[in-house]
Amino acid sequence: MGGDFAPVNVIAGAVDALRETNNRFEIAFVGPESIIRNQLQSYQAGQLQYQIIDASQVIDMHDTATASLKQKRDSSISIGVALLKEGKVDAFVSAGHSGAVMSAATLILGRVEGVSRPTIGAFFPSEKGVCLLLDAGANVDCKPQHLYEFALMGSIYTHEMFQISTPKVGLLSIGEEESKGNEVVKEAHKLLKQSKLNFIGNVEGRDILSGKADVVICDGFIGNIILKFAESVPGFLKTKVKQVTAKSILMKGAGLLLRKTLRTVLKSLDYEEYGGVPVLGANGVTIIGHGKSTPKAIKNMILRAEEMARKGINERIKEAMVTAR
Amino acid sequence: MGGDFAPVNVIAGAVDALRETNNRFEIAFVGPESIIRNQLQSYQAGQLQYQIIDASQVIDMHDTATASLKQKRDSSISIGVALLKEGKVDAFVSAGHSGAVMSAATLILGRVEGVSRPTIGAFFPSEKGVCLLLDAGANVDCKPQHLYEFALMGSIYTHEMFQISTPKVGLLSIGEEESKGNEVVKEAHKLLKQSKLNFIGNVEGRDILSGKADVVICDGFIGNIILKFAESVPGFLKTKVKQVTAKSILMKGAGLLLRKTLRTVLKSLDYEEYGGVPVLGANGVTIIGHGKSTPKAIKNMILRAEEMARKGINERIKEAMVTAR
Repeated sequence: MGGDFAPVNVIAGAVDALRETNNRFEIAFVGPESIIRNQLQSYQAGQLQYQIIDASQVIDMHDTATASLKQKRDSSISIGVALLKEGKVDAFVSAGHSGAVMSAATLILGRVEGVSRPTIGAFFPSEKGVCLLLDAGANVDCKPQHLYEFALMGSIYTHEMFQISTPKVGLLSIGEEESKGNEVVKEAHKLLKQSKLNFIGNVEGRDILSGKADVVICDGFIGNIILKFAESVPGFLKTKVKQVTAKSILMKGAGLLLRKTLRTVLKSLDYEEYGGVPVLGANGVTIIGHGKSTPKAIKNMILRAEEMARKGINERIKEAMVTAR
Repeated sequence: MGGDFAPVNVIAGAVDALRETNNRFEIAFVGPESIIRNQLQSYQAGQLQYQIIDASQVIDMHDTATASLKQKRDSSISIGVALLKEGKVDAFVSAGHSGAVMSAATLILGRVEGVSRPTIGAFFPSEKGVCLLLDAGANVDCKPQHLYEFALMGSIYTHEMFQISTPKVGLLSIGEEESKGNEVVKEAHKLLKQSKLNFIGNVEGRDILSGKADVVICDGFIGNIILKFAESVPGFLKTKVKQVTAKSILMKGAGLLLRKTLRTVLKSLDYEEYGGVPVLGANGVTIIGHGKSTPKAIKNMILRAEEMARKGINERIKEAMVTAR
């Protein structure tokens, strides 16, 4: 029931994920059983590998994260994460209340051994591929050790999921020199420099899109602000293009073609391709989707979660944390 | 001699500023006299109101800010800011070493009475006009009181310069609720709420371009990262447009037109229109230009500085600081 377009988009995306992979895995739909069953009928889903787990409650956007988990124990988020905790499912994805999913992941699942704070990472397009930025909003007022752990987890994620042999890790700051930054970043720089990670030093705001680093590390307060800023760029440009092309008839004619091309270009700035942001360092694979997730975003989120579970990302993180101690 | 294209762009922009305003003010060029004189000859600048103040040294990009001010006492930045301090000029603009200009402004000029830390503001385009974001990189590890002072100075600047009667002030955070943010932001929220400013509460990363606030307040560490990120968006999009439109002949045709449109659209994301970032709270009007300043950017920077001096922005800040105590 998660997100602005549930259950329609959620179920459509899940059906696509199963069809595309020829039922390589099984999906457990968690939510009000009758609604889900009705919705699935329109997709002739008889051939698909799924089950429905009834959950009568929905955590909505106005609920507070931790309170709602306590009060709505029969919500799809609570039940879904509990299934993951019990090992009855291998991964949990939701386009619902981000804060509630994050709280459920940390409170119910617990942390991977050695991890101080689980983190969420966001994907940015770059001129060379993809940049994973973390923390994207789960942790504010981070200590240097937290930033170091984010770097470790981000390296493992990009190594396993994007087949990058030694991912380049950059520390987000306001100058490339080691002496630049705030107090926390200067301390984190020292920790990263001493580590075995492929640390390329400080990177600046402009380096996120340039592809200088595969993993960019920052406090969640900053990461979330940049993420939201970046997400607002496509809408801003569309408005501006409309204003500009409205001024001449020639431009108006070309406007359609322009908008089509622009749409393709801006797609890379969009969350849709990546599906959602993974939670790293919690005891169980969880991906948090955008509230406005399209069926494609849902599908990609499910495929990504299945891949994370299959590749044992959390086991890799645990091993690395133990070795790094 | 400041910036990547000095003295050509600097002198071209200054000449334009004088011509456009019919010599409403006088320009003092500070730098190597013979070079400036030669350059001015090509503009038939005989009718223009200017003087040349010789400065034999240049602070280059590899110098460190404070050390270079001490070692290069005969640099254009040192001499120019000293002229401002002595009241021989009313404003100082430079596209040179940003750190050195900022250091000179704070160390040589001193602070406006009541101001704890002078700040620099950056302009962002918004769907409704312009958004002034401060601090844009002068101050890291800010205390709540600093953020409050930035808000006060930003309100005065946008009121005087953009004729906004009661500028809307937003505090950059990761959620609209008062309880959201890091420790410093939560405290700053309280100060702003109690103040006489038109405080609209927390704003998020997406609200910078949406125009929700006229003034957006944040720590300089965050402000600088967002500024650099935003500046990298036009280049990133140009690369992507090329990649996308290279795929078909029809698209190639559309590509040309799109690039032209985008250029117009992206101009609003560009520093050129605003000329540079003003220093607020130092005892003297100073604007710091982009290293890549075009003649147009230089011209706008000069016009903006003259307007700031004429409107007595610093006097307004001083009055407000005294009243706010």
